[in-house]
Amino acid sequence: MADSAYFDELETRAPDRRAEEQGQALAAQIAHAQSNTAYYGEVLAGVDAASVNSREALAALPVTRKSDLGARQKSEPPLGGLNGVPLGELAHIFQSPGSIYEPAGNIPDYFRFARCFWAVGVRPGDIVYNTFSYHLTPAGMMMETAARAIGCPVVPAGVGQTEQQLEALTHIRPQAYVGTPSFLRILLEKADEAGADVSALGKASVGGEYLPPDLRTAFKDRGIDCLQSYGTADLGLIAYESPAMEGMIMDEGVIIEIVRPGTGDPVAEGEVGEVVVTQLNTVYPLIRFATGDLSAVLPGQSPCGRTNGRIKGWMGRADQTTKVKGMFVRPEQIDQVVKAHDAVSKARLVVDSDDNRDVMTLRCEVTEGGSDDLRSAIEASIQASCKVRGQVEFVAAGDLPNDGKVIDDVRTYE
Amino acid sequence: MADSAYFDELETRAPDRRAEEQGQALAAQIAHAQSNTAYYGEVLAGVDAASVNSREALAALPVTRKSDLGARQKSEPPLGGLNGVPLGELAHIFQSPGSIYEPAGNIPDYFRFARCFWAVGVRPGDIVYNTFSYHLTPAGMMMETAARAIGCPVVPAGVGQTEQQLEALTHIRPQAYVGTPSFLRILLEKADEAGADVSALGKASVGGEYLPPDLRTAFKDRGIDCLQSYGTADLGLIAYESPAMEGMIMDEGVIIEIVRPGTGDPVAEGEVGEVVVTQLNTVYPLIRFATGDLSAVLPGQSPCGRTNGRIKGWMGRADQTTKVKGMFVRPEQIDQVVKAHDAVSKARLVVDSDDNRDVMTLRCEVTEGGSDDLRSAIEASIQASCKVRGQVEFVAAGDLPNDGKVIDDVRTYE
Repeated sequence: MADSAYFDELETRAPDRRAEEQGQALAAQIAHAQSNTAYYGEVLAGVDAASVNSREALAALPVTRKSDLGARQKSEPPLGGLNGVPLGELAHIFQSPGSIYEPAGNIPDYFRFARCFWAVGVRPGDIVYNTFSYHLTPAGMMMETAARAIGCPVVPAGVGQTEQQLEALTHIRPQAYVGTPSFLRILLEKADEAGADVSALGKASVGGEYLPPDLRTAFKDRGIDCLQSYGTADLGLIAYESPAMEGMIMDEGVIIEIVRPGTGDPVAEGEVGEVVVTQLNTVYPLIRFATGDLSAVLPGQSPCGRTNGRIKGWMGRADQTTKVKGMFVRPEQIDQVVKAHDAVSKARLVVDSDDNRDVMTLRCEVTEGGSDDLRSAIEASIQASCKVRGQVEFVAAGDLPNDGKVIDDVRTYE
Repeated sequence: MADSAYFDELETRAPDRRAEEQGQALAAQIAHAQSNTAYYGEVLAGVDAASVNSREALAALPVTRKSDLGARQKSEPPLGGLNGVPLGELAHIFQSPGSIYEPAGNIPDYFRFARCFWAVGVRPGDIVYNTFSYHLTPAGMMMETAARAIGCPVVPAGVGQTEQQLEALTHIRPQAYVGTPSFLRILLEKADEAGADVSALGKASVGGEYLPPDLRTAFKDRGIDCLQSYGTADLGLIAYESPAMEGMIMDEGVIIEIVRPGTGDPVAEGEVGEVVVTQLNTVYPLIRFATGDLSAVLPGQSPCGRTNGRIKGWMGRADQTTKVKGMFVRPEQIDQVVKAHDAVSKARLVVDSDDNRDVMTLRCEVTEGGSDDLRSAIEASIQASCKVRGQVEFVAAGDLPNDGKVIDDVRTYE
C-alpha cells in the first residue's frame, strides 16, 4: 500500500462498480437503520429497504436536517435515537458547539480521514502533528484515529500553548501537520522569528476554514505540500483534495447529493445547492443528512486517477432563514410556494427594505412568461405559506444566479 | 472477566510466582534495552542481562534520574536514545511540562491504567468521562487508552469549559469520572447549583493531586466510589488503591524500589525513600528510573486479595537540592560522605541560619558513639564533597526521622 498514490482500490474502481457496490451497501444500511435506530424506524417506516439501492431511490427518502438534531437529542438523550449500535459499544461520545452530540464507533479510522492524509502523502511511520482540539469536539480524535490507522505516531498538540507547541515541533520534527491553515501559518511565523528549524515538515492536511490560494503557495514555497479536506462532526470525511487540485473528490464511504436548500430535491449537475450526505456506516447510519453547507458537483473526473465524483468544496451556508416583518421565513416555505405552481421551475426570494419597511419579492423562473392570474395565485401562496405578503417578479428560465440561494436577504443595516 | 473483582489473574498470583515471572521479564528487558537503545547500550555495557533476574541483582544497576532526561533528550532528540523501538513504530510522542518528551507504544492500554479503573468498578460498556488534558501531555491519552481497552466509550472532556462540561455530563450521563478530585468537586458543585441530575455517576478514578479524606467521604455520600491512582508521564501507572483502601498496590507491569534519595540503595522495608521504577515494557524500557517522588513500602498484603506489594502513596518530592552559602548541595553529595565512613549508617544534613549566616550540620547515625577523629574525618569529607564547611552531630541508630529526607532545609525567610 505504501508505494501507491491511492489509499485503496476503492478510489480507482469503475464508476459503475462503485454505483453498484454503494447501492448494495445503501440497501443494507436502510434495513439496518430501520431495525436498529428508533429514529429511522419511524422516519423510514414502510420503506422497502431492498429497493433503495440507487441514488434515484435514495432521492425519494426524507431529508434529516442538522438543525433538527438538537431538539431530537434533547428529547431522547444522548443521540436522539439515531445511533445504530448500543451506547456501550461506542468508542466515543463527543459534544460539538451548539451542544450537539456525536458518536464514534469502535472501528479503526472511524471518521475516514486516513484517505485524505494519504492523498497529501502521509505514509506509515511519518510523525503526524495534530493541532485540532481533542476536548469535547471530535476534530482531534478524527485526525488521531486516521493517522493511527495508517501507522503514524501522533503528537496530540491540540490548540493554543503556541510557545510550547513551537518547542515540540522543533524537538520532535514531525513530517506532517494536521489542523487549520491559519494555525500552521502562525507556527511557521513563530519558528522563523525564533530561527527554529521546522524543515522536517513536508505535508499538511488542512481543514476547518478557508485556505487562501496565496497561503497555499507560501507553504509550497517552503516545501510543504498542503491539501484540504472537507468534513463535519457528524459525518467525518465528506470530500478531499488530491494532488490534481481540481475540486474535492467524494469520500468512498458516503453518498453525496446536492439538493435545493430547504428540500430533498437533487439539483441539476453543476448547480449550487445544499450538501446532503448518506454515510454507509452502521454505527451512526445518517441517511440523507443535510449538512447546511452549500456546494456543487464538478462534472467529469479528476486527472489524478480517482474515479469518484467531485464537488467544488465549501461554498457557504445553506441555512437562509431570515426574519421579515417579525416573522421567520425559511427556504422550506419558498419551496412550498414553488411546488404549488407547475409553471414555476425555480424561485428566489429577495428580501429588501424600502423606507425602513421590509419588502419581499419572489423572483420566479417561468418558461412561458407569466400571466396576471399566475401572479395572483403565487402571491396567495406566499401569503398562505409565509404569513407575510410578498410580490412576484417573473424571469426567464436560467436567469436566477446559480449560487444555491433560495432566500437572498439584501437589507443593509447602517 | 466482567464478573471478577480483579482485572486479571496477575493480581492474585502467588508472590513467589510473581517474583519469578517478573525476574524473567526483567532479564529479557535488560537484554532488549542493551541491544535496542543507545542509552542503555552505554549505561549497562558489560552487564550480564541473564543474571539480572531478581530485585537483588536489579539493585546493583545504576539509577537513571528524571532530572537527567531533559539534557539527554536535548542532545539526542526527541527521546534521548531511550526508546526501545524506532520512532516510526510509536503510537504517540508527548511533551510534558519542563519540555520532557515521552513515547507511547502501539499496544492496547499502553500506560496500564485499565487495572486501576477496574479496581474502582469500571466495567465494559460504562461511559467514562475523562477530564485529563489530551493536549501535549500524556494524561488524557493514558486514561483514554485504558478505558478503551476495557471496552468503555469515552467522553474526551479535557480541562476547562466548565459550563459546556456540565451540559455534557448531564446529557450523556456517564457512569465513571476520571480526573483530579478537585475538578470532580467543581463539576458536582456546579451541577447542584444548576439543579442538574448527575446521579448516573457512580465511580471515580482520581489522580494528579492530593485527595483529602473528607472529599472522598463527600463523594461517597452522594454515591460515588472514589479511588486514587499514582502514575507519571514517563511510566504510566505505578500503584493504585483497591476497595480495601490500605495504601496503594503496586502495578503488575513495574518493579518498584524505594531507595535513599540521591542513591540507588534500597532502604529497609517501611523506610521512606525515593520511588525508583523499572517498567517491563520494550517500547520505553526505563530501568531503575528515579521518579523524584517519596514513598515507603507498606508491609503485608492487601485484604482485597491482591497479592502484590504496596506503597504508602505519594509522600512528597525527593529532590532536596538546596543552596548553602551560594553553593548547590545535593543528596548525592551527602551520600558520598556517608559512604566514606563505615561507622555512619545514615545521615541527614540540616541547613539552618544563624544571624543570617548559613549553617550546615550533618546529623550522623552511629552505632557505637562517635569519636573526635571520626568527627574530623567526616567534616573533611563534607568539605571535599560539598565545597562548603559543615559541622557534625552524632545521634544513635534509629534517631533520625523516617521521612526520606537527606537534606532538611529549616531556614525561614521572613
